[in-house]
Amino acid sequence: MKRIAILTSGGDAPGMNAAIRAVTRKAIFDGMEVYGINYGFAGLVAGDIRKLDVADVGDKIQRGGTFLYSARYPEFATAEGQLKGIEQLKKFGIEGLVVIGGDGSYQGALALTKRGFPAVGLPGTIDNDIPGTDFTIGFDTAINTVLESIDRIRDTATSHVRTFIIEVMGRGAGDIALWAGVAGGADDIIIPEHDFDMQEVADRIRVGRDRGKKHCLIVLAEGVMGGNDFADKLAEHGDFHARVSVLGHVVRGGSPTARDRVLASKFGGHAVELLKEGKGGLCVGIRENEIVATDIIDTLENQKHHPDLSLYTLNQELSF
Amino acid sequence: MKRIAILTSGGDAPGMNAAIRAVTRKAIFDGMEVYGINYGFAGLVAGDIRKLDVADVGDKIQRGGTFLYSARYPEFATAEGQLKGIEQLKKFGIEGLVVIGGDGSYQGALALTKRGFPAVGLPGTIDNDIPGTDFTIGFDTAINTVLESIDRIRDTATSHVRTFIIEVMGRGAGDIALWAGVAGGADDIIIPEHDFDMQEVADRIRVGRDRGKKHCLIVLAEGVMGGNDFADKLAEHGDFHARVSVLGHVVRGGSPTARDRVLASKFGGHAVELLKEGKGGLCVGIRENEIVATDIIDTLENQKHHPDLSLYTLNQELSF
Amino acid sequence: MKRIAILTSGGDAPGMNAAIRAVTRKAIFDGMEVYGINYGFAGLVAGDIRKLDVADVGDKIQRGGTFLYSARYPEFATAEGQLKGIEQLKKFGIEGLVVIGGDGSYQGALALTKRGFPAVGLPGTIDNDIPGTDFTIGFDTAINTVLESIDRIRDTATSHVRTFIIEVMGRGAGDIALWAGVAGGADDIIIPEHDFDMQEVADRIRVGRDRGKKHCLIVLAEGVMGGNDFADKLAEHGDFHARVSVLGHVVRGGSPTARDRVLASKFGGHAVELLKEGKGGLCVGIRENEIVATDIIDTLENQKHHPDLSLYTLNQELSF
Amino acid sequence: MKRIAILTSGGDAPGMNAAIRAVTRKAIFDGMEVYGINYGFAGLVAGDIRKLDVADVGDKIQRGGTFLYSARYPEFATAEGQLKGIEQLKKFGIEGLVVIGGDGSYQGALALTKRGFPAVGLPGTIDNDIPGTDFTIGFDTAINTVLESIDRIRDTATSHVRTFIIEVMGRGAGDIALWAGVAGGADDIIIPEHDFDMQEVADRIRVGRDRGKKHCLIVLAEGVMGGNDFADKLAEHGDFHARVSVLGHVVRGGSPTARDRVLASKFGGHAVELLKEGKGGLCVGIRENEIVATDIIDTLENQKHHPDLSLYTLNQELSF
Repeated sequence: MKRIAILTSGGDAPGMNAAIRAVTRKAIFDGMEVYGINYGFAGLVAGDIRKLDVADVGDKIQRGGTFLYSARYPEFATAEGQLKGIEQLKKFGIEGLVVIGGDGSYQGALALTKRGFPAVGLPGTIDNDIPGTDFTIGFDTAINTVLESIDRIRDTATSHVRTFIIEVMGRGAGDIALWAGVAGGADDIIIPEHDFDMQEVADRIRVGRDRGKKHCLIVLAEGVMGGNDFADKLAEHGDFHARVSVLGHVVRGGSPTARDRVLASKFGGHAVELLKEGKGGLCVGIRENEIVATDIIDTLENQKHHPDLSLYTLNQELSF
Repeated sequence: MKRIAILTSGGDAPGMNAAIRAVTRKAIFDGMEVYGINYGFAGLVAGDIRKLDVADVGDKIQRGGTFLYSARYPEFATAEGQLKGIEQLKKFGIEGLVVIGGDGSYQGALALTKRGFPAVGLPGTIDNDIPGTDFTIGFDTAINTVLESIDRIRDTATSHVRTFIIEVMGRGAGDIALWAGVAGGADDIIIPEHDFDMQEVADRIRVGRDRGKKHCLIVLAEGVMGGNDFADKLAEHGDFHARVSVLGHVVRGGSPTARDRVLASKFGGHAVELLKEGKGGLCVGIRENEIVATDIIDTLENQKHHPDLSLYTLNQELSF
Repeated sequence: MKRIAILTSGGDAPGMNAAIRAVTRKAIFDGMEVYGINYGFAGLVAGDIRKLDVADVGDKIQRGGTFLYSARYPEFATAEGQLKGIEQLKKFGIEGLVVIGGDGSYQGALALTKRGFPAVGLPGTIDNDIPGTDFTIGFDTAINTVLESIDRIRDTATSHVRTFIIEVMGRGAGDIALWAGVAGGADDIIIPEHDFDMQEVADRIRVGRDRGKKHCLIVLAEGVMGGNDFADKLAEHGDFHARVSVLGHVVRGGSPTARDRVLASKFGGHAVELLKEGKGGLCVGIRENEIVATDIIDTLENQKHHPDLSLYTLNQELSF
Repeated sequence: MKRIAILTSGGDAPGMNAAIRAVTRKAIFDGMEVYGINYGFAGLVAGDIRKLDVADVGDKIQRGGTFLYSARYPEFATAEGQLKGIEQLKKFGIEGLVVIGGDGSYQGALALTKRGFPAVGLPGTIDNDIPGTDFTIGFDTAINTVLESIDRIRDTATSHVRTFIIEVMGRGAGDIALWAGVAGGADDIIIPEHDFDMQEVADRIRVGRDRGKKHCLIVLAEGVMGGNDFADKLAEHGDFHARVSVLGHVVRGGSPTARDRVLASKFGGHAVELLKEGKGGLCVGIRENEIVATDIIDTLENQKHHPDLSLYTLNQELSF
């Protein structure tokens, strides 16, 4: 291939800019041309496309968000949207496309692939819930941002001998809650992938108090229920007066961590190598600490992301 | 005086530990003994009091929260509570008391003073709403924590071309919203001390969009209304779909900034100098960049804290 | 005035971008035009000048460094350089100039003023060593960056029961060492403005060790001597094996703190108000917590910056 | 086993406290007793040993350094030292030992193992240079601390259009330089494991300048040469006037990242499971994203750590 394009789609994640930079620089290094598409699939259909030069991605690696912008665009689920998108790509002479995003974005890449246009997906989401990879771009930054908040809340919880419910992002996946919970020394972690019993949660808090623990921190994935609901239900099991802290959009932004920037750079470089060899219909990931590419159709249709539940057990044993 | 005590009361604020350290070290340096009272006025009445040594406050200056703990204790508003507290102080041979906290804590110090026991108040609250001082311990850390969140949210707001309502702490005082708003380049700041017109807020957003602005950030003090209510009301004035982020207890904790630690150290040192000379019934503050002490009765009964409203005007002019 | 310009000069300081933004936005708000000059006085003489629009300063308030760049340019000390600079300003129809920088930059503003061109100086340097102001833009960020490093080094010093010499910036002024030292709980602070006796330093370390202190941190302003020299001299007074950490250019950069951004915004706004009224030959500062403007000739020729030496005494009393 | 002990040795690394906590809590959860040994092998020989309870490791997971202290102790290389150490362990009824540290610490664990005392090594060092594991406790925090400094220096480098040499820790291993360099978008990375040609470095800088790049950042592992030497040698190849920033001990401390805390918790938990089953003579690591344990004799004698040199190639391609 001689000319490829790149877009970001879905919720922004720290490290997306590092990935765009890597794709752009690596492609130019390899003698290809790169086009940036603004506003995800919406911009693709609208033809909001421009050439990217080496300098366009300078001073971007450290920035949160995505300088190509992102947008929701359900219309791309239709044949009409997809055909219009391919038309635009052909108009610009683009032969391959890199899509950075989460689940929904992958569906767009999958649709293009099925229609014969070579697309490569890079997993970019704070939720870490993408099949085909152990880690997504943005996850490491997100858990560190959550962790910073847990550390802050611990100060207040300890000073006032209080219980806090910390609600974190994660509709379907408990990864953020699990990792940040273990790292934050949470007394309990509540995730969609594991049952819990409110009476046991309450007992756990009581045991901690009885041995003199000053604070109690419960990390809750939003997919289970809202923090206030949880606090209300907990109150039925004892005199806890738990405070609730909802860590929302704050967790999406920020300068990416070293690991997210390195991962994004590797993913971006690998995507270009695939497209250079004419390979599309793939999604890039890291598995067992190796960069891999798997068939996008097989990955999306037959594979599922599973959080590391050994962390759940470990936390139960370390924070009793 | 030969023996003084110290307690922290009300909501914790970063820098309280630095103040406790300063009082303890300075008093011992000056040949006095220092006692720490756990859990604020509750611990005072209960006699939860222990001697503090130089080493007890080592490795504490950088920690958030208060290692003497804090607690709400409405019972100290009664004559019974106050007399019991003074009895405990006398039992331990304590001749003066340093109280670190906000409005409610000052009332306790005032009550002791009126009953003849020399107390000195240090302003410790993230809200900056204490009369007698331009700045309180914890305020500088809090506005930097809020600012960090604003910077993160800007990434997402820009990437998605969205409007965000950022609700920050401040029941009665708009100081946090004002300072963090100006520092964060907020498009609008909504505080209890200044009227606002929702139509003008909406117009302001529209003007920004029309000139190509990607994000719109509105910083809202919780004392005006909740973030979700604000977003709902804003939606009546245009198609904004504003996202809401509530920065709650996260803002109370964390390692104090340089300025909060220096301020706390100066306040603590000055409180000891006052008590050493037998002076009580005072509250310490910083005014016009000088450490001062004012009569606690006069300060609480006749003075009011006013935020720096020039910041409001400045922001309107800089973020149009 | 209808058209003003702005440049940054000397070492960069966090908050310079916030000041450029404030000058630009406030001037446009007040109906004036603003021109940005790249590379300080070098760019002025070379005519590297362009119009700044509202959007040019968008998304800049949070960035470290200066997007107008800076440069050393000793040639501006000559009449030839100054006259060429004024010629360029007149060519662009510019009637007033805002100069953001330190001591050297002020000399440039002073020279222009003496030649009849209205210039206003804004104090922008991490060193805090500018007459006419209690605080400079960048100082607050710098002391927090130093403080973060001190907090990190304390971990290692404590774990290994070691003495560390932490050399910080400050050729002529001890402000950074003083503030960061007090905030970091330094065992000793060595600054140009206060004598010290190496034997007393050594004794102080010994006393700390004898009472069980695990770490010893000495904050040293580079203007006194280098950290390695200090460690060598200290070794002559006892078996200390002090480690040395030199915090160099790291301290200049980074996103500005809330206070630096607010200060920069206020300074910038005030500079425009002065120029709007046709007033030049002034330097802006903050004194006793009020924004002020003083005659630049008088300020530079007759005033001197003095660090707050009460901090020195306080530290000696708190860290014995 | 019913009673185990734990010590930290060598340079401190962020996450050591999280590992101590995990070992302690997991062992108590599994019905064992845990003893903490202060000051590494020195404390072992001296019998500076105490029982650790659940509460002793509370509020420690977030702290940098090691609360068991560390110390160099070359005497443990002798038979006398080792026999004395084993004697102390037996005196306290300790049946197994967890050693957290780097290369030298592993030698101690190896010696005990060879003498028949079951020891398990956990890799704790910022350098990431331990055989038997892809990542060590502390490495992730260290690269993020270095990265923060690179991001700061970029501000100044860009503002002044300068070249910076950033010297980072790493005597024998280039891992820190490699990861932080890729994440920081370094123009060049100089490590012990890869040759470099100064003329090519100079050419690379020139190419960057010619295409308008404002800054040039070279990340240098200290094992290659000192930063000032490098700058001097570089100056022989062109008019670069490179500034040098030496990031020293600052990088060892600080609160551990989420990943380091999770890794430390997993390592600690696994070490206890091994000892519980009576298994010693092992070192714990993470390989291909799985927690593993390998024979300590084989690992230390036959395996070598290799940095991920694909990062070197990638960086050359992304930062041309």
